[in-house]
Amino acid sequence: MHDAEATNDDRITTIRRRVDYSETDQQGVVYHARYLVWLDVARTEHLRVTGMSYREMEEAGFQLMVSDLTIRYRQSARYDDPVRVRAWVRSIDSRRVTFGYAVEHDESGALRATATTTLYVLDRNQRIARFPEHIASRLPSIPDPVRI
Amino acid sequence: MHDAEATNDDRITTIRRRVDYSETDQQGVVYHARYLVWLDVARTEHLRVTGMSYREMEEAGFQLMVSDLTIRYRQSARYDDPVRVRAWVRSIDSRRVTFGYAVEHDESGALRATATTTLYVLDRNQRIARFPEHIASRLPSIPDPVRI
Amino acid sequence: MHDAEATNDDRITTIRRRVDYSETDQQGVVYHARYLVWLDVARTEHLRVTGMSYREMEEAGFQLMVSDLTIRYRQSARYDDPVRVRAWVRSIDSRRVTFGYAVEHDESGALRATATTTLYVLDRNQRIARFPEHIASRLPSIPDPVRI
Amino acid sequence: MHDAEATNDDRITTIRRRVDYSETDQQGVVYHARYLVWLDVARTEHLRVTGMSYREMEEAGFQLMVSDLTIRYRQSARYDDPVRVRAWVRSIDSRRVTFGYAVEHDESGALRATATTTLYVLDRNQRIARFPEHIASRLPSIPDPVRI
Repeated sequence: MHDAEATNDDRITTIRRRVDYSETDQQGVVYHARYLVWLDVARTEHLRVTGMSYREMEEAGFQLMVSDLTIRYRQSARYDDPVRVRAWVRSIDSRRVTFGYAVEHDESGALRATATTTLYVLDRNQRIARFPEHIASRLPSIPDPVRI
Repeated sequence: MHDAEATNDDRITTIRRRVDYSETDQQGVVYHARYLVWLDVARTEHLRVTGMSYREMEEAGFQLMVSDLTIRYRQSARYDDPVRVRAWVRSIDSRRVTFGYAVEHDESGALRATATTTLYVLDRNQRIARFPEHIASRLPSIPDPVRI
Repeated sequence: MHDAEATNDDRITTIRRRVDYSETDQQGVVYHARYLVWLDVARTEHLRVTGMSYREMEEAGFQLMVSDLTIRYRQSARYDDPVRVRAWVRSIDSRRVTFGYAVEHDESGALRATATTTLYVLDRNQRIARFPEHIASRLPSIPDPVRI
Repeated sequence: MHDAEATNDDRITTIRRRVDYSETDQQGVVYHARYLVWLDVARTEHLRVTGMSYREMEEAGFQLMVSDLTIRYRQSARYDDPVRVRAWVRSIDSRRVTFGYAVEHDESGALRATATTTLYVLDRNQRIARFPEHIASRLPSIPDPVRI
């Protein structure tokens, strides 16, 4: 309903955005670092399916910290384009989770980028911790729906 | 449908967003410069009611350039908050238009900020130009719905 | 030495930057919201002359919160331009301080924007507080060196 | 002199910045996407050693487009930290160049992140093109000075 209208089938969460002017650069395309914000928003929405929003996780004393990120830019997104980002869990163990992402034009479906991020769980003292079981169990991994 | 779900009564356009992590700073609130992006998105949606999107305006050879901006921050927006921005035209003449904005929490309605921006029309040569009549006539000014 | 090489005569602090690609938009100029970050950096450097950096202020339990901002954009800054921002105190009382700013091309001196920001002091409980005297006394106000 | 004071030995270019408030998030550290801007600035400075700035490259009709990016975050950079980014060419052929980067605390030298980006050359028609020889010859590759 807000911003990124999120939909999910519990295994893949999709958010939708329209590219705004602040996201463009003078090449006339989306500046490459901005995609990372979209990935973050998609991942956050995917976490909501666990029944605990990321805001609530932080309030409960957990943080997720990005440790590794890869992104392949395929075709540039442009101003005012409708884009969607699909996010899913590629793998998860007791201490870290890896997400996969596909960024696509929301009408043509054309691929704009694919990406992965690995995140660790930190406790209140900023030390690496174990995933709370009730969260990890709600984040099953699936095979990549697109080639990363 | 995308991003900011925009609604308008032709005189006031409302967009809705959820605050994302990239918009926060270490005070735990939205970094003050980010509000300007929200104003831009709201203004862009308001322009769509003219029947010509801002993308189409640029393709037709016009640009809008912000010349003056004022913003009063009243209460901080926070991570994951649902916010709405209402935008309207305060005044318009042949060469410039002034928008008013109210940024509000989307559930409580509490005011987060009020703002104004004045924009000039530039032609292809980056010179100040006159508003095309069919655009200006679709942007009637109204009294401020909130005290700016 | 770092980033913005800051110089000051204790009353006016000057920072210097080169416009980077992330700051541009598809009009080929600096996106208007980015100037606010430059103002912030200039103001932060000006605070350093008090003998207490803003980081140290926060560690000591004070925060500064922007309450009002005005900016007049005069001529666009462009990619790779050397720019300088001059910051000074326009007025200060026991609870708030107003800064003035001039953004200029660093070689030609041509004015890009002028701006003002008013900030309040918050204590640890996010309540408006009084300026610590040893900070306020190090921030004397001066007449605007350029017309705002 | 400006912003990132760049130094290089022609094979490795170092820029220096101080983390500003806009770069932090509510975890109290630098938001992960911001590092990409620093990489961009470091790469741009490294290109200057070719005798042709990136601005001049664009004016001459070439663009560089990021196609692949990897980054490993090791320890968080924080507000007001002095950071340096070292950039070098890992490999280059007729159509693309891969840069390596080390982001470090500028006093302790502690590693904050390592990264790589691969860029393609585009011509005026946004088609993949060959590197102009006088540019490629000024960008010799070197072995990574740190483990990526």
